[in-house]
Amino acid sequence: MADQGEVKLLKTWSSLFGLRVVWALKLKGIPYESVDEDLTNKSDLLLQYNPVHTKVPVLIHNGKSICESLVILEYIDETWSQNPPRLLPRDPIQRASARFWAKFMDEKVNLELLELLMAQALPSMWQAFTKEGREQEEGVASIAENLKLLEAELEGKKFLGGEEIGIPDFALGWLVNLVPVFEEILGLKIVDEERHPSLSEWSRRISDIPVIEESWPPRDKLVTKWAAIRDHFLATARASSG
Amino acid sequence: MADQGEVKLLKTWSSLFGLRVVWALKLKGIPYESVDEDLTNKSDLLLQYNPVHTKVPVLIHNGKSICESLVILEYIDETWSQNPPRLLPRDPIQRASARFWAKFMDEKVNLELLELLMAQALPSMWQAFTKEGREQEEGVASIAENLKLLEAELEGKKFLGGEEIGIPDFALGWLVNLVPVFEEILGLKIVDEERHPSLSEWSRRISDIPVIEESWPPRDKLVTKWAAIRDHFLATARASSG
Repeated sequence: MADQGEVKLLKTWSSLFGLRVVWALKLKGIPYESVDEDLTNKSDLLLQYNPVHTKVPVLIHNGKSICESLVILEYIDETWSQNPPRLLPRDPIQRASARFWAKFMDEKVNLELLELLMAQALPSMWQAFTKEGREQEEGVASIAENLKLLEAELEGKKFLGGEEIGIPDFALGWLVNLVPVFEEILGLKIVDEERHPSLSEWSRRISDIPVIEESWPPRDKLVTKWAAIRDHFLATARASSG
Repeated sequence: MADQGEVKLLKTWSSLFGLRVVWALKLKGIPYESVDEDLTNKSDLLLQYNPVHTKVPVLIHNGKSICESLVILEYIDETWSQNPPRLLPRDPIQRASARFWAKFMDEKVNLELLELLMAQALPSMWQAFTKEGREQEEGVASIAENLKLLEAELEGKKFLGGEEIGIPDFALGWLVNLVPVFEEILGLKIVDEERHPSLSEWSRRISDIPVIEESWPPRDKLVTKWAAIRDHFLATARASSG
């Protein structure tokens, strides 16, 4: 195997976007140094290598930085194209479909799950604090609608990308770990076996991959973290409305 | 040249996202059929080929659809890789940079210009109707900050993508046409020669490309359209606050 060069990954312990990059590097067998950032006290490294957004993840390869998780995944696939798995299919139509679904996760599903987490306990705040001023019921309906689209897309498929795990699976991957965390905090079921058999099957298939199984952040810490974010949000919302 | 297959593009007369695809197809010399959609009365074709978002642009190639303008641009570059210009550089680091800046346009600059258009005349509405509750001054400062980043990125470069026009230039391209329209409606200067010499130079370079010059929607119609969108937005905002 050719020399991989020096690979460094800036992330946080809980960043689902960082996790996408961890999975890609580990599955392709790229050795790298992992640097956990504290976003309340950003390192000089982070400020230097992602001056535009100062966000994680950042991949630094031989001193050059790549930012934005989906951009990093494409970079990894192109730079280490000889290392399986291939993260995007060869066929241009299938590649476009993979990119479409990855974008769909970031712009629809992930966002709506966050809105749901924030607004569920405080219906009157929903309109004021969600982007499009939807009612809570509409919010729940909207995420259900998008999960239905994913369910249909996954039917009869091993992975969103096709036969092999790929970029859209990494983009959707956070569901496997974080949805149960959100469900526990909210006391409601978001994904279930009956309505989402293909999505549930896909979740198990993802979880069974050793590199993914070993990489999840500790569940208790995630519940504590997200419950605190939610409490802080709701307290701020109440204060500014009263 | 190989047979291009049947290429159809669904767009609207004013869609800047559609325009990106028009430029790519025309610059690469791909013959295509253009179908103008009326988004108040969506065609069966649009509902069939972009069931998830029912938005334009949609590229239909030999009966298969590709959605999302940046995804379409990558598809065009991969499918017609033999036709110049190459829309993404060869080098993986430069490709990542091009993708990063294209994303930056969609997630930062374009959005902030829209927010500016909507909020400029009604400062008290700014907090309630912009996503992050920023003050108007911060909104203006933020777009100024992002234009400064673009100015720095373009310094000494012919195009955002490097020596040749590429995907990030297409993503930024709307500035050339729409910023003057917004400036006219708002009565303020957003981009100027003195603060943005490289951006201004780049704008001229873009405008001088015949395929781009001939493709702009009529300016008067754009002013009318955006002024109407703004008036409608402000009226709705006033009604819901009173």
